[in-house]
Amino acid sequence: MRIAITGAGGFLGRRLAHALLSDPRVERLVLADLAPVPSIAGDARIVPLAANLAEAGAGESIAEGADVIFHLAAVLSGQAEADFELGMGVNVQGTRRLLEAARAGGRRPRFVFTSSLAVFGPPLPPVVDDGTAVHPQSSYGTEKAIGELLVSDYSRRGYVDGRVLRLPTVCVRPGRPNAAASSFVSGIIREPLHGENAVCPVDRGLELWLSSPRAAVSNLVHGGSLPPEALGTQRTINLPGITVTVDRMIASLAAVAGPGAAARIEFREDPAACRIVSSWPSRFDVRRALALGFTGDTEFGALVRDFMADEAAEKAVTQGRR
Amino acid sequence: MRIAITGAGGFLGRRLAHALLSDPRVERLVLADLAPVPSIAGDARIVPLAANLAEAGAGESIAEGADVIFHLAAVLSGQAEADFELGMGVNVQGTRRLLEAARAGGRRPRFVFTSSLAVFGPPLPPVVDDGTAVHPQSSYGTEKAIGELLVSDYSRRGYVDGRVLRLPTVCVRPGRPNAAASSFVSGIIREPLHGENAVCPVDRGLELWLSSPRAAVSNLVHGGSLPPEALGTQRTINLPGITVTVDRMIASLAAVAGPGAAARIEFREDPAACRIVSSWPSRFDVRRALALGFTGDTEFGALVRDFMADEAAEKAVTQGRR
Repeated sequence: MRIAITGAGGFLGRRLAHALLSDPRVERLVLADLAPVPSIAGDARIVPLAANLAEAGAGESIAEGADVIFHLAAVLSGQAEADFELGMGVNVQGTRRLLEAARAGGRRPRFVFTSSLAVFGPPLPPVVDDGTAVHPQSSYGTEKAIGELLVSDYSRRGYVDGRVLRLPTVCVRPGRPNAAASSFVSGIIREPLHGENAVCPVDRGLELWLSSPRAAVSNLVHGGSLPPEALGTQRTINLPGITVTVDRMIASLAAVAGPGAAARIEFREDPAACRIVSSWPSRFDVRRALALGFTGDTEFGALVRDFMADEAAEKAVTQGRR
Repeated sequence: MRIAITGAGGFLGRRLAHALLSDPRVERLVLADLAPVPSIAGDARIVPLAANLAEAGAGESIAEGADVIFHLAAVLSGQAEADFELGMGVNVQGTRRLLEAARAGGRRPRFVFTSSLAVFGPPLPPVVDDGTAVHPQSSYGTEKAIGELLVSDYSRRGYVDGRVLRLPTVCVRPGRPNAAASSFVSGIIREPLHGENAVCPVDRGLELWLSSPRAAVSNLVHGGSLPPEALGTQRTINLPGITVTVDRMIASLAAVAGPGAAARIEFREDPAACRIVSSWPSRFDVRRALALGFTGDTEFGALVRDFMADEAAEKAVTQGRR
């Protein structure tokens, strides 16, 4: 099985690569990103590839010979809102180019596209399900919704075997803040755990729809493994998540790391981020996803403990290398 | 008020032009289509324009100085299904180019985009409303759904003042069969009224969602006249229509034109047309459209009589000119 990942240098891309390499059936794993992705533990199956989907020919080099393509590369919500042309160029044109390249090989590869709860916006029903109309309130959400339509039509026409996975906001992300409007969702947990201050730009009563990195990666792998018959004509799936308020997240942080950690969060409203994140739904009916074998998290405290365990494990590996 | 219409050479475009010219506030009316549109009764406000939206610069010449743009030009459903590249090029890229041209002027023109019930597909709720998810089962429907998302995001960003009008199948269209999968819907009425035979490619029990040309044109004009406050962030409107079976249509035809007319219809299934048309919904909740002042038809017999009256009037004009 030959696999390609776009956005492979990102946090989810790297985690997904690790997960896929644990499967001995994987013969080749192309890791595509703007800059070459650092090789993972010298695994000979890895092919690093520097490719920019805004440029001609990039799609072809990524898709060549692939049985499965995970298309994770995207300009994130904050940046796509600030730079409309960049977002449209990468998130729409780039996705179209990659789909064309995947189609051109005539192999009908599996095409796993990561979409987002950002395709939804008010007025929202109390619970979002598979029949809920998209109504994006950001250019990022618009571009993801267009990508969903393209993947579905390319699948219907038999050009690719597509799967659209709508991810909840992933928390806790490691590393530094990124260009997503939801960057703070991880920041308010991660920074205090590192002894740093964090800013929360939204009201503490705001409800969020979250997934742990573990569940997200496991669901991506599962999405790539499902037989096409399981999906039929409905290629878009709302992935499982948990509904939690900012207040509840902070209480969990305090429970795990003490009240001092929670005290490091300063509330300072950012209207731009607030407007985008508040437009996203926080309650979903995910019975179809669960029936298809996708999995979710149980409670937010586990997400905090997972993050701490992952960081400790990484630290041990890094120290072991020295 | 300066107005531009794309697809102005088409049936709805010509009718819309006539309707708009009856408004003395209209100072200029650009009639854009692939071929130059025949001038209408020598009205000096008309500017015919040959423009292909698949070519660079066409959008700019259409949008230049316009206060209102009616974007009707499209590759129709049957042709878009047969030629994927053509449909994507005109229906998606062409719409994007026209939106960019409309934005570039910095005048934030009204942008009326004609979409279609073809954005919907099974599984469908018993009645489609504004919260129903699109699920196109044709490339035409996919391309219209992408156009809807683009118009909404360009509106949200303040680049244009967009209105997306989802038209029912328009019946009875004059002229010859066209490249729409729904071409037969008019053909089974029009051809028998002309003493010609017609083929019905679908089952007589199939329910359709129809609008008369009169209601469609009147709703397009109304869509262009609504103040932006009336629409808020919800730029997409399901227009009123009537629900009718093929059987009921034929009964109305027989009532108006006699059983001989109805006997001219031959049932011969066409799987391609059948698959596309059967995926469209036939029952809509249009309370929002009605509250916004859009209007609908009352019963199918009136559509047949309207068509006959329009043809008789046109014949009188043509004979008067000789």
